[in-house]
Amino acid sequence: MHNRNAPVQDFHFIDSTLREGEQFRGTHFTIDDKKEIARLLDRFGVEYMELSTPVASPQSAEAVRALADMPRGFKLLTHIRADMDDAKLAVDCGVDGADVYIGTSNYMREYSHGKSLEQVIEMGQRVVEYLNEQNIETRFSTEDTFRSNFADVMTVYRAMDLAGVDRVGVADTVGIADPLSTYNLISNLRDVVNCDIEFHGHNDSGCAVANAFCALQAGATHIDTTVLGIGERNGITPMGTLIARLYTCDKSLVEKYDLPLLGEIEDLVARKLGIVIPFNTPITGEVAFHHKAGVHTKAVLQNPTTYEAIDPDDFGMSRFIDVAHRLVGRNAIRNRALTLGLELPEDMLRLVTTQVKALADLGPITIRDVDDILYELMQPVED
Amino acid sequence: MHNRNAPVQDFHFIDSTLREGEQFRGTHFTIDDKKEIARLLDRFGVEYMELSTPVASPQSAEAVRALADMPRGFKLLTHIRADMDDAKLAVDCGVDGADVYIGTSNYMREYSHGKSLEQVIEMGQRVVEYLNEQNIETRFSTEDTFRSNFADVMTVYRAMDLAGVDRVGVADTVGIADPLSTYNLISNLRDVVNCDIEFHGHNDSGCAVANAFCALQAGATHIDTTVLGIGERNGITPMGTLIARLYTCDKSLVEKYDLPLLGEIEDLVARKLGIVIPFNTPITGEVAFHHKAGVHTKAVLQNPTTYEAIDPDDFGMSRFIDVAHRLVGRNAIRNRALTLGLELPEDMLRLVTTQVKALADLGPITIRDVDDILYELMQPVED
Repeated sequence: MHNRNAPVQDFHFIDSTLREGEQFRGTHFTIDDKKEIARLLDRFGVEYMELSTPVASPQSAEAVRALADMPRGFKLLTHIRADMDDAKLAVDCGVDGADVYIGTSNYMREYSHGKSLEQVIEMGQRVVEYLNEQNIETRFSTEDTFRSNFADVMTVYRAMDLAGVDRVGVADTVGIADPLSTYNLISNLRDVVNCDIEFHGHNDSGCAVANAFCALQAGATHIDTTVLGIGERNGITPMGTLIARLYTCDKSLVEKYDLPLLGEIEDLVARKLGIVIPFNTPITGEVAFHHKAGVHTKAVLQNPTTYEAIDPDDFGMSRFIDVAHRLVGRNAIRNRALTLGLELPEDMLRLVTTQVKALADLGPITIRDVDDILYELMQPVED
Repeated sequence: MHNRNAPVQDFHFIDSTLREGEQFRGTHFTIDDKKEIARLLDRFGVEYMELSTPVASPQSAEAVRALADMPRGFKLLTHIRADMDDAKLAVDCGVDGADVYIGTSNYMREYSHGKSLEQVIEMGQRVVEYLNEQNIETRFSTEDTFRSNFADVMTVYRAMDLAGVDRVGVADTVGIADPLSTYNLISNLRDVVNCDIEFHGHNDSGCAVANAFCALQAGATHIDTTVLGIGERNGITPMGTLIARLYTCDKSLVEKYDLPLLGEIEDLVARKLGIVIPFNTPITGEVAFHHKAGVHTKAVLQNPTTYEAIDPDDFGMSRFIDVAHRLVGRNAIRNRALTLGLELPEDMLRLVTTQVKALADLGPITIRDVDDILYELMQPVED
C-alpha cells in the first residue's frame, strides 16, 4: 500500500467551489462573490482553485481574469473541454493551469460528445501539447471513469502521461464508485503513469469523502473539493468532511491549513446560496460535539477523547453536554450542579436524575427545568 | 473477497432511530411518535428495530412493551449493558432480541466502566447464557472496537461466539474507522466467528455509509442505521444513503424494500425533530436529481443514465433540468422551448442561449426570464 495511514503531507486541495459549485442549484456568484470566497480559501491554505471555463459566459471569462490578477497563494485553474479554442481562451485569461476533460465511458461517447477512443486521445494530445508550450500546468481527466472500459482508460492515461501532462484525473462523474473500487483503480493507475493523480468524486451514493480518502491511500495527490460539497446534483467531496477524515488519521493537518477558518468559509458560502448547513456535517455542524446519553457524558466529562475523535479546540468549536432529557445520567447532573455552585450528595443526585427523567418522559424539557429541580432540592424545608 | 459486488440479499437493516436516534440533540419521542415511526419503517421493510433500554426511564420501558404488542414484521430489539438486571427487564418487556454492549478500548475501560478484559468476557457470557435460556436473539458488541487492541477484541468475539450469541457487533463508536480498516477488521472477524456480524458506525469523519458498505463486502450481515442518520453527536449511517449505496450496485433492492416510502419516512422524522433534511442527501435531498451544466443537461435529455446512477422513478422522485443560469446549453434551451410548444431553428436557439447567459451574468434569473426571452423571439415583428 502506497501511504495507508498518513496521506496528509503529499495531499493538495483543488477547490472547485467556483466551478463545480457553480453547477449547484441556485448558485449565481458575482465576480465580487468569487473574489470574496477565493480570499478566504487562500487564507485557509488551499493549493489550487478551479473556475468555470471562460467559454461559459462573458462574466465567467471576466472572473478568471479578475482572480488571475489577485494577490494569492493558490494556483488558478480553469476547467475546459479538450478543445483548442477553449484552451486558447484559458491561456489568454491568465490561468496557471488548465483542467482538461473528456468522457471515456460508452455513455459519454454516445450521448455526450460522440467521439471514438482514438479521437479522444488525439484531441487530448493536441491540447496538452499546446498548453505545455504555453507553460501552463496541465491536467487531463477522463469523465465517468468508473463506467469506462478499464483498458481504455489506462490507455488514455498512459498516452496523456507520455504527452507530458502534469496530472491525470479520475472522475466518478455519476457517484457510483465505492471505496474498494476507487482504491483498486487508483492503485493500478499509480503503476501506469509517472505524473500526479487527481480524484473527483460525486456524492450520489454517499461515498465521495471515503472514495477521496481511499484514492489518497492508493497514491492520488490531488482531490477536488468544494465548500460544503456543492456541485451538480447533490455535489462532490465536501472540503470540511475530507478535513475531518484526514485529521482523524494525522493531526499534523493543523499545521498545514488554517483550520479555525473552516466554519467561516462554510457560513459565507451557505449565506450566499441561501442554504442551511446540514445538521450532520462533521466538525462544523451544530451537533458535531453534542453529547447526550448518560454513558457518553460520564466519560466525556472525565476525558473527552473517550467519545471524541476530533478536538473541537483545533477548529475553534466547542462541545456541549446535554442534560435535559430522559437519557441523562447522574454524572452529567453532578456536573451541571457544580456549574451552578451546588455540591450534592450521591443520593440526592440520584433523586434529581430520576426526577429529570420522569419530567422528560412527559415532554420536551430545557436546561431551566433541570436547574429548577436542582434549586428546589437546595431550598431549606419550611414548616 | 466475501461478496464484493452484491451484498444486498444477505443484508439486514437494524433500524436504531428509536435508540441511537434518541441520543440525537432534541429528540423527545412520545410513545405515539415511536409507534408512528415504527409502523412506517415496518411498511418499508426493515428487518429489526432497536429501542432504548427499558432502564433509561419509565416511558422507555413502556415504549418497549407497547411496540412488543404491535402487529409488525420486524423483530424488536433493545440495547442493553452487559448487566443481568438490564437483561431481565428487557426480557420482561417482551423483546425478540437484546443488543448487549460493553467497551473494550482502553478509553472505555478507564473512563467508562473500569473493567478488565476477563471481566468483560465473564459479564458478557453470563448475560448471553441467560438470554439464550429465555430464547431471546442475542447480539454481543464491543464498544469503540477500532481503538481496541486487535487481539483483545478477537478474543472477546470468539468467547461470545462460543457462548452462543446469534451476532457479534463491531462498533465505530467515535467515528474514526475508514473503509479499508473496516474491511480488514470485518474480514478477519469473519474467519474468527461463525455467527452473524453487525456493524455500527458513527459519522464524525464522514465515512459511516462507506464503512457500512465495506463491512458488508467483508462479510457483515446486519447494519445499524437510523432515519437521516440521527444519533449521538452527528449520528450514524443514514438509512437512505446506505440504500443509495446498495442500489447503485444491485437494483434488486427495489424488490426487497418499499423504496418510494423513503421520502415519507424521512419527512416524518425531520418534522418530529424540527430539522431540515440536508440539501446533499442522496435520493431524497432537494437537489439529488437536479441537472444544470450544459454538457450534463444535453446528455440527460437523451439518456438520463448518462449522468444518473439512480433512477428517480424507483423512489417516486423526479428529475429537474435547470435552464435559468449562465452555464445553460443550447440543448436544454431547445428542450424548454419544445415544452412551451415552440420549435426554433438552431441559429435562434444559439441566440436565446447567449441572451440567457448574458442576463444570468447580471444576477439570479428564473425560468420565467428564460420563457420571456423565448416568447419575445416568437413575436411577429411590428412596424
